Amino acid sequence: MTTLKILQRAKAATATLSTLTTEKKNAALSAMAEALLADTAAILSANAEDMEAAKATISAVMLDRLALTEARIAAMAEGIRQVAALPDPVGHTLSETTRADGLVIKKVSVPVGVVGIIYESRPNVTSDAAALAVKSGNVCVLRGGKEAWRSANAIVTALRRGMETVGLTPDLVNLIEDTTRQSATELMKADRYVDLLIPRGGAGLIRACVENATVPCIQTGTGICHIYVDKAADLEMALSIVDNAKMSRPSVCNACEVCLVHKEIAAEFLPRLKARLCQGRDTTAELRLDETAAQIIDGTPAGEADFDTEFLDYILAIRVVEDVEQAISHIAAHSTHHSEAIVTADRATADRFTAAVDSSAVYVNASTRFTDGGEFGLGCEMGISTQKLHARGPMGLAELTTYKYIITGNGHTR
Amino acid sequence: MTTLKILQRAKAATATLSTLTTEKKNAALSAMAEALLADTAAILSANAEDMEAAKATISAVMLDRLALTEARIAAMAEGIRQVAALPDPVGHTLSETTRADGLVIKKVSVPVGVVGIIYESRPNVTSDAAALAVKSGNVCVLRGGKEAWRSANAIVTALRRGMETVGLTPDLVNLIEDTTRQSATELMKADRYVDLLIPRGGAGLIRACVENATVPCIQTGTGICHIYVDKAADLEMALSIVDNAKMSRPSVCNACEVCLVHKEIAAEFLPRLKARLCQGRDTTAELRLDETAAQIIDGTPAGEADFDTEFLDYILAIRVVEDVEQAISHIAAHSTHHSEAIVTADRATADRFTAAVDSSAVYVNASTRFTDGGEFGLGCEMGISTQKLHARGPMGLAELTTYKYIITGNGHTR
Repeated sequence: MTTLKILQRAKAATATLSTLTTEKKNAALSAMAEALLADTAAILSANAEDMEAAKATISAVMLDRLALTEARIAAMAEGIRQVAALPDPVGHTLSETTRADGLVIKKVSVPVGVVGIIYESRPNVTSDAAALAVKSGNVCVLRGGKEAWRSANAIVTALRRGMETVGLTPDLVNLIEDTTRQSATELMKADRYVDLLIPRGGAGLIRACVENATVPCIQTGTGICHIYVDKAADLEMALSIVDNAKMSRPSVCNACEVCLVHKEIAAEFLPRLKARLCQGRDTTAELRLDETAAQIIDGTPAGEADFDTEFLDYILAIRVVEDVEQAISHIAAHSTHHSEAIVTADRATADRFTAAVDSSAVYVNASTRFTDGGEFGLGCEMGISTQKLHARGPMGLAELTTYKYIITGNGHTR
Repeated sequence: MTTLKILQRAKAATATLSTLTTEKKNAALSAMAEALLADTAAILSANAEDMEAAKATISAVMLDRLALTEARIAAMAEGIRQVAALPDPVGHTLSETTRADGLVIKKVSVPVGVVGIIYESRPNVTSDAAALAVKSGNVCVLRGGKEAWRSANAIVTALRRGMETVGLTPDLVNLIEDTTRQSATELMKADRYVDLLIPRGGAGLIRACVENATVPCIQTGTGICHIYVDKAADLEMALSIVDNAKMSRPSVCNACEVCLVHKEIAAEFLPRLKARLCQGRDTTAELRLDETAAQIIDGTPAGEADFDTEFLDYILAIRVVEDVEQAISHIAAHSTHHSEAIVTADRATADRFTAAVDSSAVYVNASTRFTDGGEFGLGCEMGISTQKLHARGPMGLAELTTYKYIITGNGHTR
């Protein structure tokens, strides 16, 4: 089916959204999970074809992201059931006022409508995104990566059949068939049909959306996250936080890429940091040092790009700063506004840092790795917004809704 | 100064935003109001030059919008004082959770940062927008119409001096000097410097922003508003609501442009509607009728465009519909998602209409004219959003804020 036709069907499906009760949505999610399990063999077979076709062109890490197993499919089904168990974000009265003249103004949460998601090769994103869309009463249009298309199609086929078994239109979940760049561009420009576009991927995809989209977008995920170790830091705590934020999972967006160190503690802290990250462990970090840090410890001299790169690797850029103000300025100039942290025992310095740093999540004495829908108690996550409009930080079900005003009078005129 | 330089200064001024207390902002607003009054003569003189230059090229209505008087300047100053009196939207804890492990996650309202506003010739928009920006802790970059530039510049000069008298950087309020199309395009693409763009103007400007902007935009103001008169309507109430919504101020976006009438009451209602809107009053309406309506009353036959036009005039398009479902479909196909109303005594029909109609404000037995920041109790208004992301309907101070998470631990790692 052409991308245009899919978009038209998605838009047409929004006419049914206002009749979706919580019970119906949960029944659909349960049926979707069952259909997914029932189709395990077909999904594995489609995935095997994807893997076979992709192995010549993509890296081992990417191949592992693409690979499905019976256990992974079971986990996807379980993920759908967990979304079903979350509270319904739609239909809440966010505020209600009755004017002196009796006019009642209610603000009520409603679905956004049609949500487009552009993503890459992880097949579980297909079922996660579909589940979150259905639970929040939205129609979704999925545009996955070429390498994973057969897998995504097999998954969506199962999910759509599940919806049909409980009497919902399968057009609530749609997969774009064209995986060329043209379909991504078409989706970005489909403001007649799509209410919200969420690009999940690398910086190139995000920038393409910002440059080309006429559909309102939420930028997600790019994280050049900073940790500032203040002169009043508990250095043992700082070591443990930097270790966790850098080394526990460097491929994710909430991992730390840059450590800023107050000059007064640099001579004591940096050797300990080097010992912690670079010695006596299976995987060690590469340190990229500014001039001052390089006078204290050994490491790679930092190039200009090193303070503007999301390494997603065991690499940490280190800069020695004059004070918290210089740390704040550095972050303002180099951050992607995702997550930043300060380690300090000084309350006033912490307050200054959290007030001045303009990022979606600002931490005091904790690792940046907590920026995550599950960790924040949202129960799930559609991505992490690094922009300021509509949603900031982890986006769960509530962030996939908007609101409308319902005003009731008795012949009121103005 | 070049537009780029102005944008850079605006961005630099955001470094001071986190130190703005409510007291400081209110003191600045008060000083801005005083400076505006003190500069009355200079502003009137600049405005006289604008009027002289514009009178050959713009209509009498537009000239009236552009004209300033001592009373209008006093009203602008009073408007600034009213904004000062509103509650501060920044610094509120929107939610706070403490996890089992003691990590405290607070969600706090913060300014958006740099807000760009593209508008046309009304000079009071300059002071209104500046006041709302300062109160919400934002930096604003104003790009007004060419015809009003001298007036806007005189106003901004006064406002900036006011800010300086209380020790704030005047760069919180900036006026772009270039009034050619190029500066509007530059502002739309300035995502490095601007966090939010609000176009206030005609459909052409809004579309240009949607097509070209890389800065996140909030579409405002275009209103093709519908009133559906149900078979269960109190017809006298329906007449009064349509009269108010169409005739009280047709040039505004919340005025009604289309009346949909249930077929079972059309024969009774339409002659009364014609009598009400077209007879025995100074200003009468022109009715544009679909085929069925034209069999009942006289009027202009509706052309295809008449159901997709924001007349902003004493013109009402009328269509007879089968039932509430056809009214809902018509609205879905033709509305700009601003404001729609149903007149009915049937609660179930009203509920169906309010659930299914996807507009920022949906009315039952009340005029669409209430969609307004003041009427909704927001105290002020930066425009009326007709999109779904971030803000919907009237935008007051809260809609000029975003949030960030501040997370406090004690060495927490994940």
